[in-house]
Amino acid sequence: MLKEKIKGIIWGDDQSRRYLFDKAMLAIIVLSIACMVVSTLPNIAAETRQWLSTFDRIFVVCFSIEYLLRLWTSPKGVWGYATSKWGIVDLLAVLPFWFSLEGNFEVLRVLWLLRILRIAELAHHVEAIDRITRAFNMVKHELAVFGMLAVVVMFVGSVGIYEFEKDVQPQNFASIPHAMWFTIVTLTTVGYGDMTPITLGGRMFTALILLTGLGVVAVPTGLIASGLQRVIDEERDAKELQRQKDKA
Amino acid sequence: MLKEKIKGIIWGDDQSRRYLFDKAMLAIIVLSIACMVVSTLPNIAAETRQWLSTFDRIFVVCFSIEYLLRLWTSPKGVWGYATSKWGIVDLLAVLPFWFSLEGNFEVLRVLWLLRILRIAELAHHVEAIDRITRAFNMVKHELAVFGMLAVVVMFVGSVGIYEFEKDVQPQNFASIPHAMWFTIVTLTTVGYGDMTPITLGGRMFTALILLTGLGVVAVPTGLIASGLQRVIDEERDAKELQRQKDKA
Amino acid sequence: MLKEKIKGIIWGDDQSRRYLFDKAMLAIIVLSIACMVVSTLPNIAAETRQWLSTFDRIFVVCFSIEYLLRLWTSPKGVWGYATSKWGIVDLLAVLPFWFSLEGNFEVLRVLWLLRILRIAELAHHVEAIDRITRAFNMVKHELAVFGMLAVVVMFVGSVGIYEFEKDVQPQNFASIPHAMWFTIVTLTTVGYGDMTPITLGGRMFTALILLTGLGVVAVPTGLIASGLQRVIDEERDAKELQRQKDKA
Amino acid sequence: MLKEKIKGIIWGDDQSRRYLFDKAMLAIIVLSIACMVVSTLPNIAAETRQWLSTFDRIFVVCFSIEYLLRLWTSPKGVWGYATSKWGIVDLLAVLPFWFSLEGNFEVLRVLWLLRILRIAELAHHVEAIDRITRAFNMVKHELAVFGMLAVVVMFVGSVGIYEFEKDVQPQNFASIPHAMWFTIVTLTTVGYGDMTPITLGGRMFTALILLTGLGVVAVPTGLIASGLQRVIDEERDAKELQRQKDKA
Repeated sequence: MLKEKIKGIIWGDDQSRRYLFDKAMLAIIVLSIACMVVSTLPNIAAETRQWLSTFDRIFVVCFSIEYLLRLWTSPKGVWGYATSKWGIVDLLAVLPFWFSLEGNFEVLRVLWLLRILRIAELAHHVEAIDRITRAFNMVKHELAVFGMLAVVVMFVGSVGIYEFEKDVQPQNFASIPHAMWFTIVTLTTVGYGDMTPITLGGRMFTALILLTGLGVVAVPTGLIASGLQRVIDEERDAKELQRQKDKA
Repeated sequence: MLKEKIKGIIWGDDQSRRYLFDKAMLAIIVLSIACMVVSTLPNIAAETRQWLSTFDRIFVVCFSIEYLLRLWTSPKGVWGYATSKWGIVDLLAVLPFWFSLEGNFEVLRVLWLLRILRIAELAHHVEAIDRITRAFNMVKHELAVFGMLAVVVMFVGSVGIYEFEKDVQPQNFASIPHAMWFTIVTLTTVGYGDMTPITLGGRMFTALILLTGLGVVAVPTGLIASGLQRVIDEERDAKELQRQKDKA
Repeated sequence: MLKEKIKGIIWGDDQSRRYLFDKAMLAIIVLSIACMVVSTLPNIAAETRQWLSTFDRIFVVCFSIEYLLRLWTSPKGVWGYATSKWGIVDLLAVLPFWFSLEGNFEVLRVLWLLRILRIAELAHHVEAIDRITRAFNMVKHELAVFGMLAVVVMFVGSVGIYEFEKDVQPQNFASIPHAMWFTIVTLTTVGYGDMTPITLGGRMFTALILLTGLGVVAVPTGLIASGLQRVIDEERDAKELQRQKDKA
Repeated sequence: MLKEKIKGIIWGDDQSRRYLFDKAMLAIIVLSIACMVVSTLPNIAAETRQWLSTFDRIFVVCFSIEYLLRLWTSPKGVWGYATSKWGIVDLLAVLPFWFSLEGNFEVLRVLWLLRILRIAELAHHVEAIDRITRAFNMVKHELAVFGMLAVVVMFVGSVGIYEFEKDVQPQNFASIPHAMWFTIVTLTTVGYGDMTPITLGGRMFTALILLTGLGVVAVPTGLIASGLQRVIDEERDAKELQRQKDKA
């Protein structure tokens, strides 16, 4: 009966109770990540670092217990869960810390964060995620064309700016890959300013690439937004129609 | 009868007269803020500073009188107004300046500005604000999903860029919070250039995060815009229908 | 009869001929502006400068003749044209250069450029300009609300960042107007990097202002775009309906 | 019969087989470009450079053979292909390398990339490209108006900022063309920070130009996105209608 109870809490159809469990796990994940972020700060007192390390082990234990409970009670069976997408994420998120608690596995903690997405998937946002996916599918061919255009614009821009600037700034524009960094930073309008063209030709070329290429990078974003709006509209219209039918 | 008259001017249904009062208050608020802004300028003559200080006291007196008048004549009663949203804003905007006119309460003057929003709420823009609110509600689930994705992208980006750059630029990328500043400045395409990746890995990672993450940050804006358009369209269609009905 | 002929060329209903005149004037305007731009370049040979100056006088003579011809042949009469919007622009564009050819009136040459807009107004783009105007009118209340929000966000941002950074960077963040420059450069995502927050509080506050304020600045642009689309759609639908009616 | 077979592979109506050939050519193009990019890197061992050079010749031979085969088997005949758009691109992409394998024709390799677009044109994305073209046509008058406005804003901005900053920063704002570089970098919100206004007037003017000019540059992008969405919607509606007709 314990198994059934735990199953109800972790996987159960009982929305409100499972939601409570999800909220608790979310809190632990956020706490664990805050811990990790703080522990990278320089100038932390040795004592604080000790505490952070202790908390860290507690979080790993928590996640491990969660993993074992999920493995035990999964409706898909032990093997089904272990080989599922989230099962692998959950395992990778705890396993390395058990084999070597001193090791440099910080990067793997990013997996802890990924699990936030699972909670999103389970909870209230399933329909929104579904709408976003449908919007993506609706405009995917256009996105592919703009993606190809973006690759061509970025490459042409990189070769061009390299040709213009390589002689005057051999340090900054040392090779085409260097120029690619410049082109990406420019076309996304980030513009750090760590590399800038100084020749007349380089500046005119950059201006040209900007004015023609900006749309290529920015249109896809607008396309997803308006596609998403269309999906939302359709759903609302369908609901409205259903309501009028029910009335009649 | 004086009370009734003042009530009519401040709260009255008589749009044109209340609008006049609102305009006068708006002018005083703008003036008071201009005063405050100018007084922070270095190299101001002592005499000018004296004048600014005098004006400042006059504005506080004005706002205090307005508060008392509102308190006295509020249709919701003295207590109802004192505990209302705008009542608290109005009180906080004047109280500190009476207890210590020499104190450092500049920040509280921001509250003076907030009151501009009240005028917007009362005057001609009620319907527009209502439409904006409805547009927000229409897309709120999508905004939540994109918000969660943005948090994940920003965190993954921060951890990644920290790992790539921490050894080469220990000054700039001293910790994950430092890297977070870089990631936010990058993904919003502000790109000050105070921190930039210099390793090959760091640049490739930043480019990747930019190309995948840009949409996550930019789509919500487009979504609100197209949602708002949908609300405007619906309202216009409804009005058109009403007009045709009236005609028939 | 000469007057009638010139009138036909400058103002005439004969689209193709007037369009030719407009094209010629457009070419002269563009040439004159190119001349002006080039003449600001340092390191120009004295002889070239002589030529540029000569061209410049020729352009002023051209524009003056055009003004006089328009004055003479205007369908609205001499006075009607002289007091019309474009009549004043045309006069201001030439008058100062006659009174003192040596004077510093470069800025007034911007008026030469404004006349490009007249050609746009006359020629093929009247309908597009009309649609853009209608789109603006459709969303003007929303734009006003977002404009007010933008003012509030920019002001709150300026005061906040000033409070955080003034002690650490008294040079850069010397006053609230200085901080306003930072806030505008940040919220428009330009991000020159001439001023950047360096305190933890300042960075957190900037991040907050960015994440909440970005939409306030970016939504209006999206709104105009989708409003314009709606106007285009309506016009196309109306045309389609007309065509079907004509068929039936 | 060999000719027929090759024709079937290169130009054939047999989608799946031609697609295989296209995929192979795409792989070679990508490889050749990767080769070219890598060869610009400094600090490459002499041996590696030798290999890269050898690969390079192989790619040129491959592209030449492809050109000859296309010339031989083109359904439009030898002359028809040689004078077609893609025929000229293909010829320019290989010819210079035969006449002087040591020459500096790197820039022409950009043509290799352009051929990626041919594959896009042939393969799955024809319909998406067609929709993008239609969307462009639908909003082209609006784009022209915004383009003209952008030119005027950029010019007015350049002259203004030049007037404000030329005396204080004669190095950076040396001429109007220099100021144009600043204005373009600013209005596209790239903001490298290599040039920034420092006078009060220059900053106020830049802020003004930003707040009014941002929309002029950003609206066209949104317009293309929403126009594209409209085209997609229409196509879907037409398909839906067709399906319902087929049903009935």
